[in-house]
Amino acid sequence: MTPRTARGRRPGAPDTRAEVLTAARASFAEKGFRGTTIRAVAASASVDPALVHHYFGTKDDLFVAALEIPVDPRAVLAPVVAAGPDGAGERLLRTFLSVWDDPEIQVRLLAVVRSVLNEDGGRLLKDGFIPVVVGPVLAQLVKDRPEVRVPLVASQIVGLIVTRYVVALPPMAQMPAEDVVARVGPVLQHYLTGDLA
Amino acid sequence: MTPRTARGRRPGAPDTRAEVLTAARASFAEKGFRGTTIRAVAASASVDPALVHHYFGTKDDLFVAALEIPVDPRAVLAPVVAAGPDGAGERLLRTFLSVWDDPEIQVRLLAVVRSVLNEDGGRLLKDGFIPVVVGPVLAQLVKDRPEVRVPLVASQIVGLIVTRYVVALPPMAQMPAEDVVARVGPVLQHYLTGDLA
Repeated sequence: MTPRTARGRRPGAPDTRAEVLTAARASFAEKGFRGTTIRAVAASASVDPALVHHYFGTKDDLFVAALEIPVDPRAVLAPVVAAGPDGAGERLLRTFLSVWDDPEIQVRLLAVVRSVLNEDGGRLLKDGFIPVVVGPVLAQLVKDRPEVRVPLVASQIVGLIVTRYVVALPPMAQMPAEDVVARVGPVLQHYLTGDLA
Repeated sequence: MTPRTARGRRPGAPDTRAEVLTAARASFAEKGFRGTTIRAVAASASVDPALVHHYFGTKDDLFVAALEIPVDPRAVLAPVVAAGPDGAGERLLRTFLSVWDDPEIQVRLLAVVRSVLNEDGGRLLKDGFIPVVVGPVLAQLVKDRPEVRVPLVASQIVGLIVTRYVVALPPMAQMPAEDVVARVGPVLQHYLTGDLA
């Protein structure tokens, strides 16, 4: 728990947390989720690995923090999962829209989406965000075969993000949230619990 | 039909067509689909508007040519539409995959998708490609309310493009085409002819 003070900083100085986060962001961007270790991030920030754990928890938590998204999807999705698979498609969508339709949150999420898609071709989405952050949560909702169902859910959610928020395609961008829930909710339910071929 | 020869080129010289296309691309990129006119493209390329029509047909045709996509979606989709709404979701998807899964075509389509999403934030998708190129074709398949159903179809197709091709999210990227058809086809059918709220 004792940070190194090689650069003369005091242990736990206010900028230590920011430096760890900067090192983590650089590592995730360069090496992806799987290629990043707490140990390497700690070394890069000249602190003890235990301090990284102390500040950020697990590597998953550090990843969520490094994404700089204004919400933790795992916390947001917890009540959706707690209510069980029945009607989960609509609840999932309603929760997703309540976060994304908030203008202040949306502008920050869009910056993350653009950066992930442009800079690393979506690698952090592919090897971090979907399998590590949202996958295990959504997997609790599916009937079977989470490794197929969760990515199918992701395919429709990603399509909504691009058409409703990134491109603002009419009328997807202007569609009242409850209309989106009514029209797209059954699709998510199909992917979560319907009969797959 | 007589091109201007202000720059000393002969009428219909081989590079005239290329110059019109370059002018068209610049105009679509800068002013979007709606802001572009055949007249302005012709002026920019120093040719008569009739020559643009002669080479490229309508403004829609010029737009498809300027996109530099290796297929004309209107021609590809014609047989899907001709067979009517029953089973159209699966046929549409099978046709889409037969084009996109071709490695040579895919690399060129990906370049277009990346350029459209990165450079103009998707404006050409929003005001040109979906409403002008594929919209009128798909509208022939829907039960009612094409202005809502076609963009819903687009939301799932765009999500497939991003997850299967741009990001290559497992297992979307590796899923056999017939599995995608079986799993996602019913979703497109729902958007085309199902009960919307």
